[in-house]
Formats: sequence, structure tokens, C-alpha cells
Amino acid sequence: MNLKTLAKELNLSISTVSKALSDSGEISLATKKIVQKKAKALNYQANPNASSLRIQKSNTIAVIIPAIANNFFSLAINGVESLAKSKNYHVLIYQTHEDVKIEKEVAKFLMNGRVDGVLISLTRSTTTTGHLKALKDRNIPLVFFDRAAENISAPRVITNDYESAFIATEHLIKNGCTKIAFLSISEILNISNNRLNGYLDALEKHGIKYNKNFIIFCDDDKEQNKKKIAKLIDKTDRPDAIFGCVEELAIASYEVCKEKSICIPNEVKIISFSNLKTAEILSPSLSTITQPAYDIGREAASLLFRLIDKKVISKEENVNVLNSTLLIRESTQNN
Amino acid sequence: MNLKTLAKELNLSISTVSKALSDSGEISLATKKIVQKKAKALNYQANPNASSLRIQKSNTIAVIIPAIANNFFSLAINGVESLAKSKNYHVLIYQTHEDVKIEKEVAKFLMNGRVDGVLISLTRSTTTTGHLKALKDRNIPLVFFDRAAENISAPRVITNDYESAFIATEHLIKNGCTKIAFLSISEILNISNNRLNGYLDALEKHGIKYNKNFIIFCDDDKEQNKKKIAKLIDKTDRPDAIFGCVEELAIASYEVCKEKSICIPNEVKIISFSNLKTAEILSPSLSTITQPAYDIGREAASLLFRLIDKKVISKEENVNVLNSTLLIRESTQNN
Repeated sequence: MNLKTLAKELNLSISTVSKALSDSGEISLATKKIVQKKAKALNYQANPNASSLRIQKSNTIAVIIPAIANNFFSLAINGVESLAKSKNYHVLIYQTHEDVKIEKEVAKFLMNGRVDGVLISLTRSTTTTGHLKALKDRNIPLVFFDRAAENISAPRVITNDYESAFIATEHLIKNGCTKIAFLSISEILNISNNRLNGYLDALEKHGIKYNKNFIIFCDDDKEQNKKKIAKLIDKTDRPDAIFGCVEELAIASYEVCKEKSICIPNEVKIISFSNLKTAEILSPSLSTITQPAYDIGREAASLLFRLIDKKVISKEENVNVLNSTLLIRESTQNN
Repeated sequence: MNLKTLAKELNLSISTVSKALSDSGEISLATKKIVQKKAKALNYQANPNASSLRIQKSNTIAVIIPAIANNFFSLAINGVESLAKSKNYHVLIYQTHEDVKIEKEVAKFLMNGRVDGVLISLTRSTTTTGHLKALKDRNIPLVFFDRAAENISAPRVITNDYESAFIATEHLIKNGCTKIAFLSISEILNISNNRLNGYLDALEKHGIKYNKNFIIFCDDDKEQNKKKIAKLIDKTDRPDAIFGCVEELAIASYEVCKEKSICIPNEVKIISFSNLKTAEILSPSLSTITQPAYDIGREAASLLFRLIDKKVISKEENVNVLNSTLLIRESTQNN
């Protein structure tokens, strides 16, 4: 049963039937009802590819993220899906595995009307943004969440990275730490640099000179990261605290401390940006800066749907900051 | 630059150019090379919808899973993606959130040639399978992984659920446990029932009568599950071990024990099927039955590509069992 046979059954033109099925304003309500009833009775289903060619809408949005095996991103996607569902939209999830090459491929793949809009959180190594500009040039609405490109004009939903890092660093200082290491995930990413700046400014405010050997740039290779952390822990002048920029670095730090029998929090305190489900039951429980991941995803989707619906987004609304929460647990407790 | 202009530039028919670009056997290698070179030079990109209408191939597969915020499924997807990438296929990820209604919607959405094949792990409440039969009836290749439907004839990649549960239960018995509770996720799912049977048979082998009050059926609501576990822990005749069918139930059990100051493993031992990244650093570290999740995903994708390529899969290959590993850690240690 295709559109042609359906039209024949109804004794109407293909164009009329197609417009009726896509709820076009050109067709009377009465005709629409007749067509829809017949389509249902004959169990007609539009060929999705043919259909999106005709009506130029896919009712699909894409979410591009570094990894799904990360509680922040999986929660954010749940937020995106909750809104998409209420709008009858499908959500395609793409993982870049922190590989900018894959990010570019996905963007290219989405260029030709496959989706109505794109939500993206960049890889940790995205420096060039031609692939994102290309999406914008083709009028495909684009919204960033968490990891945004500074040089692309598109709405973004982020958290208060700088302030959160500042507060977390102050918390460590108040609990007696003076030799605080910072584990960054990228020299490029806005989130990483904003967090680093919050950390640096908190140190400065409290008259603590920062030690450049205590700022470690990690990458996506867990074993390499653990080696870097082990080197830090093995220093004769070892840090008394580690601040992880993302939760994977807190996990790596815990593992290194366990392997080296370093006691957390007595010998080294640990805090991290994290939405880890098991933060509460780790040994010891992990102090976290927890992002409102679900709300970030939902808000980003909301902005994207406004763009898809051709609504105007004011300059003020272009940058949407949702605050994170400091959750103090055992890993930063005073000795 | 569309197909028509590209054909004109090349002085070839649209059909020839299209076939050359889709690597058709009807076109000579020499012509293909010329066409591909020109397409590249002119930066030609196929309209994905138009293109899939012509060649009836989407170069896309779908993976339908209960949830991405689950280490088993996120690792399995990485396995799927690793193979898909090498075949130049895109992977669409769909979450059902354990809701069979969503599973049906997704299956319907995929019915009309949107994808070349489907990998699926069922929700915990999937009883009717008409939506899967419908996919098969439309000749869309289907492969199950982990959670499979018994009454649909399609290849499946699973782990040795029964034997793993048997071995894990014996491990608890050998460490002195006689009152072992089992937390199931479903009365329907094959994986859940196979694990339950392994547990029951191990008890029987060691002359331990099973206690039906110690078999708890949990659902997808964490707070409800925690209440059920708390009720179990509060019994005057409390279990001396808890066997979690999936990792979320182990996390819930840890949280309940922490809230009630019950010492693991001294007062209650805990073991679980799990691919939890933080199993090693929990308080105490969690003994697990760890599934080869990545390999399960990759093997399922491999079977799917064989179906897509119209290769025959023998009856023996239809059920593919990859073994899990028992990793003994502190949570089941002898007192």
C-alpha cells in the first residue's frame, strides 16, 4: 500500500492525499478526515524517506555527545528525550568517543535534512568548527550544551563552571588543604578552562601560589591518566588534595590511591565534578560538584525546538546557565 | 551540486552515476573511479533521503536498549559501533526506558526502511512480540542481545546466565551463606529467569531449601526497590547474602545497608551481575559476575551484518553464548 494506491482508492490526487496526511492548511478538514480514515483502514504507512523529501521535516533531532558511558551525558539525554517525546520527536544519539574526526563525520552525515535540529556537546579536542558552521549555513538549528564552541553563534546551556570550581577549591582550602592539584580534561574546552580559572582564582584569593606541576592535562586514555596521577602522588612534595574536572578523573584518582594504599581523605582529599550514581557508596564517599544534567538536556532541547519552530531567541536567552550543587561527602572531610 | 548536475558534468546518465556511487556490480571499476573522483572534486553529497529511496539501503542500523545509563548497555553499544564503523555504517541508539510502549513505537518507526537492520535488548516487561514479528515480516534483519524473546526466530547473543548464577551462588555457600536472597528484575525476561534457576539449582545441590520470601521481584523504580530491599534487611530472620540480578539492584542494596548501618560483608554479603566501572572502589569493593558486554555487542552486530548481506546463519550459530567472569572482591569475603 503506497501513496499512489491510497490516492487511487480515494479517487483523489497524490498531492491532495499527501497534503492531507501531512496536515496541510491547503486541504479542508473534511477531506483530511476522509483521507486519514482510509489510510488507517488500509494500514497505510508513509515511506519515511519519501515522506521527508516531500514535507521537508524529519520530526527527528540528533544529540551528539562524547560518550554515553558517562552519567552526565546519559542524564542530559534523558532530559532531551523527555521533551522530545512530548513533541512527538525522535532522538538520534551519536557518540563521538572524544574523536573530532567522528564529530565531523556525524555533522556531515546530518547535513542533508536527515534531522530537524542538532544538540551537541563537543569533544575535548574540537578546535576547528567548520563542520558546525556548515550545519548553520544549511539552516539546521544548532544548540550547544555543556561543551560549547566560543566562536559559533548558537544558543548554549551550561553550568556555572567558574563559580562551582571556585567554591569547591575554597571548600578544600577551608578544610586545611594548601597543595591542591587540578586535573583538566582539555587545554581547549571552555568548561575545562572555566573550571581551571575558578580554581586558580580561589587559590589567589586565599594567598596560595599555584604550582604549575599540580595542573595536569589528561586525555581519553584511562591508563595514561592513571600514570599521570600516580606520578603526582609519588612526588616527595605530594598534593594534599586533587580536584577532578570530570568524574572519570576522580575514579582514576581513587584507583591510584587504592593501588598505592594512600588514604582518602587523610593523606589526600578528592573532589570532582560528577553525576556518578555510586558517589555515595564509594570508599570513601565522594564529594562532588553535581550538575543539573537532566535539566541542562531538557533546557537545551527546549531552545532547539524554539529554533525549529522559527521563534526568536533573544540575546539574553542565548546563554543559559543552570547552577551546579556542591555535595560534601567523606572524601574531603577534615582529618 | 546534485546527482543530475554531477551526471551532466560527467556526460553520463543519472542512473550510471548513481550506481557507480553506490558501488554497484553493474558498473565497471574504471567508470566508478572516474565518477568517484569527480564527485569528490565537486564536493558532491548525496541527499540521504533521495539516495536511500534509489538504492534501498540506509547504511544505518538501529540499537534498541532499555537504558544508556547502564554500563552493560553502553559497553555493548561501543562493541556494536566498533564493527559498524569498519563497515561504514551509522548506528542509531534508541532508549526504551524499560517501557514496552516505547519499544513498540520505535519498532513501528523503523518499519519502513529507515534502517537496514535492528539490534535489540528487550524491556523487562515485553510480553507480546507482534512489533518484532512485524519487523521480521518486512524483511528487516533482527538480532537480539542479552534480553531475547523466546518465541521469535532470530539470532541472539547472550551470556551463560544459568551457569554464572549457579557459580556465584556456590561461591556464597562456600563462604558460609545459607540464607541467600535473590533480587530479580522481571518475571518474564529470559535472562532474569535463567539466573534465578541457576541460583535455585545451586541451593538445591547444596541441600539448602529455598525461601520464597527471599526471592524479590524488583522493577524500574529505584525508591520502590530500596523499600523492598529494606523490608528484606529488616526481617528478624534476615538473609546473610544478597544476589543482585543486575547492577542497579546491587547499588540499591549498598545504599540500604549504608542507611541502616549494616556491615557488608560481615552482616550481609553482596554479589551481582555488573559491569560497574566503580565496582573496585566501592565500600566495600563489589564482587561481580561481569559480562563480556563489548564482545556481546560486537558479535551481535557481526550476526546482523551477515543477515544484511543475505548470508546464511546456521541453526548452531543462531544462539551465541559468551561466558561471563566471576570477580571475587571484598563484598563476599568470609568473615
